[in-house]
Amino acid sequence: MKKAYICLDIGGTKVLGSVFDENLKIVCTVKKKTKAEEGQEKIEERIIGIIEELIIKSQMDRGSLVAIGAGAPGIINESTGQIIFTPNIPWKNYNIKKVIEERFNAPFHIGNDVKMGVLGEWKYGVGKGKENIVGIFVGTGIGGGVIINNKLYAGAKHSGTEIGHMIINTEGPYCNCGQRGCLEAYASKIAITREIRSQMQRGRKTVLSDLMGDTTVIKSKMLKKAIDEKDELALEVLDKAVYYLAAGAGSLINIFNPNMLIFGGGVFEALGGYMLPKVQEKIRRFSMPAVFEGTEIVQSKLGDDSILYGSLALIMERFRK
Amino acid sequence: MKKAYICLDIGGTKVLGSVFDENLKIVCTVKKKTKAEEGQEKIEERIIGIIEELIIKSQMDRGSLVAIGAGAPGIINESTGQIIFTPNIPWKNYNIKKVIEERFNAPFHIGNDVKMGVLGEWKYGVGKGKENIVGIFVGTGIGGGVIINNKLYAGAKHSGTEIGHMIINTEGPYCNCGQRGCLEAYASKIAITREIRSQMQRGRKTVLSDLMGDTTVIKSKMLKKAIDEKDELALEVLDKAVYYLAAGAGSLINIFNPNMLIFGGGVFEALGGYMLPKVQEKIRRFSMPAVFEGTEIVQSKLGDDSILYGSLALIMERFRK
Repeated sequence: MKKAYICLDIGGTKVLGSVFDENLKIVCTVKKKTKAEEGQEKIEERIIGIIEELIIKSQMDRGSLVAIGAGAPGIINESTGQIIFTPNIPWKNYNIKKVIEERFNAPFHIGNDVKMGVLGEWKYGVGKGKENIVGIFVGTGIGGGVIINNKLYAGAKHSGTEIGHMIINTEGPYCNCGQRGCLEAYASKIAITREIRSQMQRGRKTVLSDLMGDTTVIKSKMLKKAIDEKDELALEVLDKAVYYLAAGAGSLINIFNPNMLIFGGGVFEALGGYMLPKVQEKIRRFSMPAVFEGTEIVQSKLGDDSILYGSLALIMERFRK
Repeated sequence: MKKAYICLDIGGTKVLGSVFDENLKIVCTVKKKTKAEEGQEKIEERIIGIIEELIIKSQMDRGSLVAIGAGAPGIINESTGQIIFTPNIPWKNYNIKKVIEERFNAPFHIGNDVKMGVLGEWKYGVGKGKENIVGIFVGTGIGGGVIINNKLYAGAKHSGTEIGHMIINTEGPYCNCGQRGCLEAYASKIAITREIRSQMQRGRKTVLSDLMGDTTVIKSKMLKKAIDEKDELALEVLDKAVYYLAAGAGSLINIFNPNMLIFGGGVFEALGGYMLPKVQEKIRRFSMPAVFEGTEIVQSKLGDDSILYGSLALIMERFRK
């Protein structure tokens, strides 16, 4: 490799890291548990360890490492690398930039993970060449990112595009954020799981009981299997999530009039085949025909790698400046 | 006058026109009924007549007329001057630009009225120097405009920022646009009037009965008087509108994380003194504290002249290019 780029997707549960070569192809990947509960220093050590492992695994010459990029949850100043707040990792007003740059003698750039995912889709994925994009990433929660006039929108204080917390119903269910009726409280993995478990406790029958076994976690893959088997409860709950996603997406189309709306995240990775066509149809109910006309409603192309590619895009943008 | 600019606010009911001098001060104004029902050609003639009247009234030298700007309702391509669709004026895929430019030998620029209002507030009003602004204009309907990175956001097809049609409640009341539960269906002048009249028909007592006399129209000034007199029904209905405006505004803060949110339009012109402090307080319920912190919630400074000033700003932007 003449040139190498290391990109990281730092999540509350796992850290995914990849080496990209000079053709911007992934040459190797490492995946580790974050163990966020062990505190700031341990996570920092673990991230440094993953970068070391990637350097060794890829057999790169250390001198060929051009830059390191990363996406992490929370409010992050993409310009300075300052992590203002992360919901699931004990980082607050924390800057990992200096540590990594000194250790590896390469520039380090970091941004909000979902924003990076949308940036990745715009630069290398399904959104290539689109001037205005709204991205809705449905996972444990719901995050968003917006490309406006070919640029990732940051917001006044880097905390913009919290589209999971737009109000879908002022009197709706409480959300983890403390508000009521947020999109996230209706259509995230947390909301879907809560609804299914609540129904199971009421004695509703579902193939998910067998699939879950002794665990209390409903994985997206289990939901996929339940949908494939036309499980009544799974269909009912997912169709409700689809309805509210369509409402949120319809509002966002009225607000942004984007060229393209991209659905991504773990839930769409597993269930997009079922959910996307339904959202595409229902979204018409919630957006103005003159505004909706011509808007492409698509699914993420880079899937689980979108944040890695977004970090790569962030590196490339910084080099352009 | 060494230089003169003519700016128009073309509404479904009235056309307001002003001459600005080289110091960008209004030197004279003309106001006429639009008489939209008389059709495209008559409106065109009337607009030309207003421009003529402004030239004469201001005693300008015709050679000093630098440009003409205008704001009108609907979907307008600000780059080409193409009026794609207006809800209350019989213009569809219509271009008034050529006619006016040939007649007055000066460039003509036109944009969506509410977008122009927000542009005016950003360039000459309360939003000066703010990089990211969301404007909510509450009048007969609810319109919006967004300044992103010091630029008016157009949307992919010039129909963006229809924030009056974001969903506040998926099962809410029908809106004029055909959707249910739009912000406009809860908090516009139309919604407020509908609610008050419906309650009056149910025998609720209100000072508005006397104020309205034989008419069926509830003017914003009447509402102001009713609020001043602490009329129970008027307070109840306006407080409800305030609640939903706060929900919509809170969502928009979560989505855009703007530096400033500006309320404008006829309803705020008349009732802002009562409504603004209440919205400022209630908006906290609907936005994430970390995102909300530092966002200024203010009222339009240019009031009824905001669209005129926005048209002036549009002229100035075109000259800069």
